[in-house]
Amino acid sequence: MTLPEGYKIRRIEKKDYEGVVETLAVLTTVGNLTREQFESIVDYWNSVQMYHDKSIYKYNPSVIVDVNTDEVAAVGNIILEQKLIHEGGICGHIEDIAVSKNHQGKKLGKALLGYLSDLGFQSGCYKIILDCNEKNVKFYEKCGYSTTAIEMQKRK
Amino acid sequence: MTLPEGYKIRRIEKKDYEGVVETLAVLTTVGNLTREQFESIVDYWNSVQMYHDKSIYKYNPSVIVDVNTDEVAAVGNIILEQKLIHEGGICGHIEDIAVSKNHQGKKLGKALLGYLSDLGFQSGCYKIILDCNEKNVKFYEKCGYSTTAIEMQKRK
Ligand SMILES: CC(C)(COP(=O)(O)OP(=O)(O)OC[C@H]1O[C@@H](n2cnc3c(N)ncnc32)[C@H](O)[C@@H]1OP(=O)(O)O)[C@@H](O)C(=O)NCCC(=O)NCCS
Ligand SMILES: CC(C)(COP(=O)(O)OP(=O)(O)OC[C@H]1O[C@@H](n2cnc3c(N)ncnc32)[C@H](O)[C@@H]1OP(=O)(O)O)[C@@H](O)C(=O)NCCC(=O)NCCS
Repeated sequence: MTLPEGYKIRRIEKKDYEGVVETLAVLTTVGNLTREQFESIVDYWNSVQMYHDKSIYKYNPSVIVDVNTDEVAAVGNIILEQKLIHEGGICGHIEDIAVSKNHQGKKLGKALLGYLSDLGFQSGCYKIILDCNEKNVKFYEKCGYSTTAIEMQKRK
Repeated sequence: MTLPEGYKIRRIEKKDYEGVVETLAVLTTVGNLTREQFESIVDYWNSVQMYHDKSIYKYNPSVIVDVNTDEVAAVGNIILEQKLIHEGGICGHIEDIAVSKNHQGKKLGKALLGYLSDLGFQSGCYKIILDCNEKNVKFYEKCGYSTTAIEMQKRK
């Protein structure tokens, strides 16, 4: 994983509220998420560990930030699922990847995917999966992913 | 959700080791999962709650069993993911659905999907997703799901 110069990558912190909410807006509706809600979700994410190794987080919300200004340029998460199949294997779920408009096309998305994938495999995943629109398949192929199946959904 | 007569549905328990491992074998490699590993995964699943309501489990491993013999006929799980998007929304992930060979075609799969979906929406999900092979799309459509996107994966 190589990060373009001028950026660093780290776990989400409470101070990232505004930058993260703004960045996620390229993806979908974030809605009226208050700072208080954001902070309590960050606390919750920090409180859930994996059973095979208590130093491993179940949620791994990550941001790429500007090294100087700490401005959020990209955000994403990998969630680790403890399964029974594959000998009690762990499956990684990559979720809610977004690069903010004025930072797109600078290889930040690719760097973020590389980081989250490395983190997942180091944490013991036998596979990592994600769901995406047809129009983003090429991007994820450049990140080492390949199409495997169909996502289905049900809404309330 | 209507369960065929002679069956009941409940959360996985430690005593389900053999039946669950046998049932999952229709799906994929379970491998050499020991009773000890199974029991510690069940303990782990029982230990992780959601932050918005501590009475809600993050993992909801469920089995359909014969009311008389307690034999496992079907197994599945819905995992609840705490997001930031959709105002701190919850997304449900249905995983590892399997109906054992000699119980297939009796509407147990449909009943299990109905149960897990109800459980997810009652727990606050704004959507529930699952990934499946082309050949099972029709089955999930009969359970109220519709195709939405593409699943991609990366393996070690
Ligand atoms: C999709 C997204 C995560 C990609 O992140 P990014 O930082 O802009 O992409 P990168 O610069 O890391 O791109 C890595 C590679 O994928 C390619 N790529 C990126 N997006 C692509 C797309 N939608 N289709 C085809 N290729 C794409 C890049 O050209 C680059 O290729 P290269 O390595 O051969 O030069 C980001 O743009 C995003 O969050 N977009 C918001 C969602 C959206 O609006 N998507 C619509 C895009 S059409
Ligand atoms: C796929 C699976 C979960 C379905 O569970 P099930 O209990 O056998 O299915 P149900 O009896 O609940 O079926 C509900 C409905 O879906 C239909 N259906 C089930 N599987 C189907 C399939 N693969 N394609 C099309 N329709 C299917 C049934 O005909 C039934 O339709 P109806 O309500 O109109 O009568 C189960 O068979 C299973 O675990 N299979 C193992 C995986 C596998 O080998 N899949 C290959 C199947 S080709």
